Amino acid sequence: VEPALDELKRRLGEIADLERIQSLLHWDLEVLMPPSGQDARAEQLSTLESILHDRRTHDRIGELVEQLEPYAKSLPHDSDDACLIRVTRRDWERERRVPTELASELEGAAAASYRTWVRAREESDFGAFRPSLERMLELRLRWVECFAPYDDPYDVLLDEHERGMRADRVREIFGTLVPELLALVNEHASDEEDDVPAGPFPIAAQEALSRELVERFGGTWDAFRLDPTVHPFMEELGLRDIRLTSHYRESDLTALFTAMHECGHGLVEFGVNPALDRTPLCEGASSALHESQSRLWENVVGRSLPFWRWFYPRVQQAFPDVLGSAPLDRFHRSVNRVRRSFIRADADEVTYGLHIVLRFELEQELVAGRLAVEDLPEAWNSRFAELLGLEVPDDRLGVLQDVHWASGLFGYFPTYQLGNVLSVQIAEKARESIPDLDARFERGEFSELHDWLRENLYSLGRKFTPAETIERVAGGPIDAQPYLAYLRGKLDTLAEA
Amino acid sequence: VEPALDELKRRLGEIADLERIQSLLHWDLEVLMPPSGQDARAEQLSTLESILHDRRTHDRIGELVEQLEPYAKSLPHDSDDACLIRVTRRDWERERRVPTELASELEGAAAASYRTWVRAREESDFGAFRPSLERMLELRLRWVECFAPYDDPYDVLLDEHERGMRADRVREIFGTLVPELLALVNEHASDEEDDVPAGPFPIAAQEALSRELVERFGGTWDAFRLDPTVHPFMEELGLRDIRLTSHYRESDLTALFTAMHECGHGLVEFGVNPALDRTPLCEGASSALHESQSRLWENVVGRSLPFWRWFYPRVQQAFPDVLGSAPLDRFHRSVNRVRRSFIRADADEVTYGLHIVLRFELEQELVAGRLAVEDLPEAWNSRFAELLGLEVPDDRLGVLQDVHWASGLFGYFPTYQLGNVLSVQIAEKARESIPDLDARFERGEFSELHDWLRENLYSLGRKFTPAETIERVAGGPIDAQPYLAYLRGKLDTLAEA
Repeated sequence: VEPALDELKRRLGEIADLERIQSLLHWDLEVLMPPSGQDARAEQLSTLESILHDRRTHDRIGELVEQLEPYAKSLPHDSDDACLIRVTRRDWERERRVPTELASELEGAAAASYRTWVRAREESDFGAFRPSLERMLELRLRWVECFAPYDDPYDVLLDEHERGMRADRVREIFGTLVPELLALVNEHASDEEDDVPAGPFPIAAQEALSRELVERFGGTWDAFRLDPTVHPFMEELGLRDIRLTSHYRESDLTALFTAMHECGHGLVEFGVNPALDRTPLCEGASSALHESQSRLWENVVGRSLPFWRWFYPRVQQAFPDVLGSAPLDRFHRSVNRVRRSFIRADADEVTYGLHIVLRFELEQELVAGRLAVEDLPEAWNSRFAELLGLEVPDDRLGVLQDVHWASGLFGYFPTYQLGNVLSVQIAEKARESIPDLDARFERGEFSELHDWLRENLYSLGRKFTPAETIERVAGGPIDAQPYLAYLRGKLDTLAEA
Repeated sequence: VEPALDELKRRLGEIADLERIQSLLHWDLEVLMPPSGQDARAEQLSTLESILHDRRTHDRIGELVEQLEPYAKSLPHDSDDACLIRVTRRDWERERRVPTELASELEGAAAASYRTWVRAREESDFGAFRPSLERMLELRLRWVECFAPYDDPYDVLLDEHERGMRADRVREIFGTLVPELLALVNEHASDEEDDVPAGPFPIAAQEALSRELVERFGGTWDAFRLDPTVHPFMEELGLRDIRLTSHYRESDLTALFTAMHECGHGLVEFGVNPALDRTPLCEGASSALHESQSRLWENVVGRSLPFWRWFYPRVQQAFPDVLGSAPLDRFHRSVNRVRRSFIRADADEVTYGLHIVLRFELEQELVAGRLAVEDLPEAWNSRFAELLGLEVPDDRLGVLQDVHWASGLFGYFPTYQLGNVLSVQIAEKARESIPDLDARFERGEFSELHDWLRENLYSLGRKFTPAETIERVAGGPIDAQPYLAYLRGKLDTLAEA
């Protein structure tokens, strides 16, 4: 057993190193790289990806997990080694389904398609993007075929990001959400001008406030960075090398929420038990669980009144001319305002779910072959009008707004909304253990919450399936009701005030 | 021929990609990485190095160059393919000499030794560093043995950085230099206080001036970056992704010379013929040739009077309080002042060579086993006193100052001084083609010089041996006389003024 386990860990360690290197290549590309470096970087990414794919699908890994199976069975279900062998077998079997040529074709086409999308979006020209999208969809469907037989092709897509999740389960959860969200929007959406001034908020001060938030939430600068970029994201380059990014605009304070959001993602990675380092278990358990944490810190904490009781005076101090005379309640209302709008990434907590539902529906139609790519803008605009009550004026504000499809990512969007739902379930569980959470937020104390989340969620990494992990941390399966109650409670309180 | 050449180029392209990835890992480590990321980065570097070593020494490369030999012989000596096959064969044969275990042992020991050195230097404690240095020397000597038989073990070391250079040739060149440099130091060295004020020079303004220099010399920001670090260096991450670094101090303007120096290194890489991209020919031909260009831009251009006639008014404008009343000739004298000092990296053009000679002599003694590591500080201090006339007060200012030996780099130092010598030979050749070079410098025009260097040197990359390349660009072999004449001329003019 020992030599086989050592060899497996050595091989997995090298794969983990190469994945972190890949993350650095992406991070640098988005944050710093001089623009003309693009071609060389594409070559580097493609070379690295082919090495990674060869290693991940190497025969030897299959032999080793086979050989280690009896050992794994002899261990408790939650032992690190048992989990490692279980997850490795599953990853390996999945990766092996996809021929190397298809994997590298997808990678190459995604890079080209991304560039086409950037230009098409700028010019709001869906026609220019259409051939790329058709190509990505075709490649992704060939990829789905590698996993035949399946009940629903969409299950295959979901499984990539949310192991074990199924389309019918998502439909069920979203089926509960949609009428309630529509009712909340009808009741609370407002088209009023915001009554908090639109800046200017000098960027240096926004950056300082963002850094203060990361520190307070538990990030330490010996292990974290926070850098500006165009489309914010987080990359883990090592258990103690967490790269957060944000985007600053002088006209609003969105960057503060971005910092909290990316910090949440970072804390998930930072909190993995170091014993799992350099293994496939050393990351968040799924996309939805990751997103649950970015949203927990951004929304459940970062849009709450107790949080702003602590933080608003600091923000006022940073921008005395702009906010000096705007009272706390007005500010707090403005960061929770429900408003019908076009861009998902800027949407409030209530309309956000409707943006996701739209994408989920359209993706299913595309994947099932019931909707042609050329008819996508019309389908988008018509369903958008039904869900959000707005006429989409151009494709930049519509079907071209997100990068996901351009990169061949189908089946990812639902995990955002599942993450929102989970964020409330998990926060409530934490609140059971730490009843004075709000009082602590009012004092700017977040370490008890962070400790609880690390112990009950982050430390587990990817040891268990998403469903098992959710069961452990939230005490039950995904459930839309606590999320809806949270939204209703918040909006009613705001309406009464 | 075609399929073999294609396969060779594909393999070499992947190696080139991985080398650039390695450069990014190093660049990020030195420039940005949060300090606690160190352990993860060390793992990544070690994994990548072992993949690189496997690929560089792969049997298949040997088979392919063997197969392509008749084709290469059928081509003109200077054809890209002939050069590629020639250089690849030579690199492969060299790399194959070293067993993978030794290569990775050297890599691992160097990383550990570097960390020990950093602490030992801080505390000026040679004893703490001695075991590491003994280990690095022992490993390097085992590495040298892989290349037996040889005339002189030092030749093996030199050959790694300066293909074909031999210790006896370096001794000859340095033998010409030393008495002349000593005479120049005796005649011109001054211990006077500098008569240009010691700042403060705000760092933002130094950075803006540095960027102006990079632009003027031919760097473009779509392909270059300039970032602060502790020990400046340049990394090429792609033909159009050149990373310069610099180090700023409020008390002096050294950073301007650092920017010119690193820009010179960057222009060498930036100027390689794009047809050579992703091959082992896509870099400078040797360490000395690389250094000749950093020194040409830093010293031959950047410490000349015509250059400062153009640039000094801009520097005065940036620091009016400090330099407003300091005349040009006083400033120009101060940046060319000959002064006995302890630190090589801060030395002037004349004493610099003596710092190198010291290291070259000691390295030969260490490698030949005539000097034990434990006796090194004493040997350093005593020879330092002879060459530079100063008593070394502590090892931080003495034997512990440079990183090279800590990293296992022996036989590298001479290339710095060979670069200085070459910088003048090459600049004189350029001057033959562009007689009004000084007049152009006075107008801030450097593009003719850059164009000449790119055409006659940079574009060649590593197609030819260093000696062939030097012959092509300088019209003859390395020769100390033009360099000595240049120093004498400059110092005499300064003395007369």
